[in-house]
Amino acid sequence: MAYGYIGTMKTRPGKRDDVVAILLSGARSLRELGCESYVVSRAADDPDTIVVMEVWQSKEHHDASLRLPEAKEAIAAAMPMLTGEFSGRELAVAGGLGVGD
Amino acid sequence: MAYGYIGTMKTRPGKRDDVVAILLSGARSLRELGCESYVVSRAADDPDTIVVMEVWQSKEHHDASLRLPEAKEAIAAAMPMLTGEFSGRELAVAGGLGVGD
Repeated sequence: MAYGYIGTMKTRPGKRDDVVAILLSGARSLRELGCESYVVSRAADDPDTIVVMEVWQSKEHHDASLRLPEAKEAIAAAMPMLTGEFSGRELAVAGGLGVGD
Repeated sequence: MAYGYIGTMKTRPGKRDDVVAILLSGARSLRELGCESYVVSRAADDPDTIVVMEVWQSKEHHDASLRLPEAKEAIAAAMPMLTGEFSGRELAVAGGLGVGD
């Protein structure tokens, strides 16, 4: 059963696109870490909110990815541009298009 | 710019997996309609909640897909199993892994 995660974060004024760029910078390399989908978006209803939708082979793959030096560097770079308001929701992925292909 | 949508719905007790099956039944055919990703999940924190994460080439593609007879049939089949509690969030997709490939 694949693991899904929806993460939401608020950025300081004017910093949203910088954070989006950081979040996207390592996206292509995630597949080899067990990531099936990783989509970074701007919320349509809030100019300072970013939403990340993720699908991983397992929660363990997801958690391991966050322990890599590159991930820690990206988090450290983004953190000063965030307000600290986060939310997250864990999902048990049932299937669909674009996952498990 | 791709269009994203996160939809959440609550199902009546015991009906979640039936609704998941309906939501997945037409997933593979969505790509030709302009869908890049369509992921159906069970919420990890609630036994009666389903979360659907979608990425489409545009909002127009998404809206048009809902007007197809197959979509209307699926919605009609699922509706009696839902409580009526929905939420949705529209997204402007910036990029990532598994979209725009």
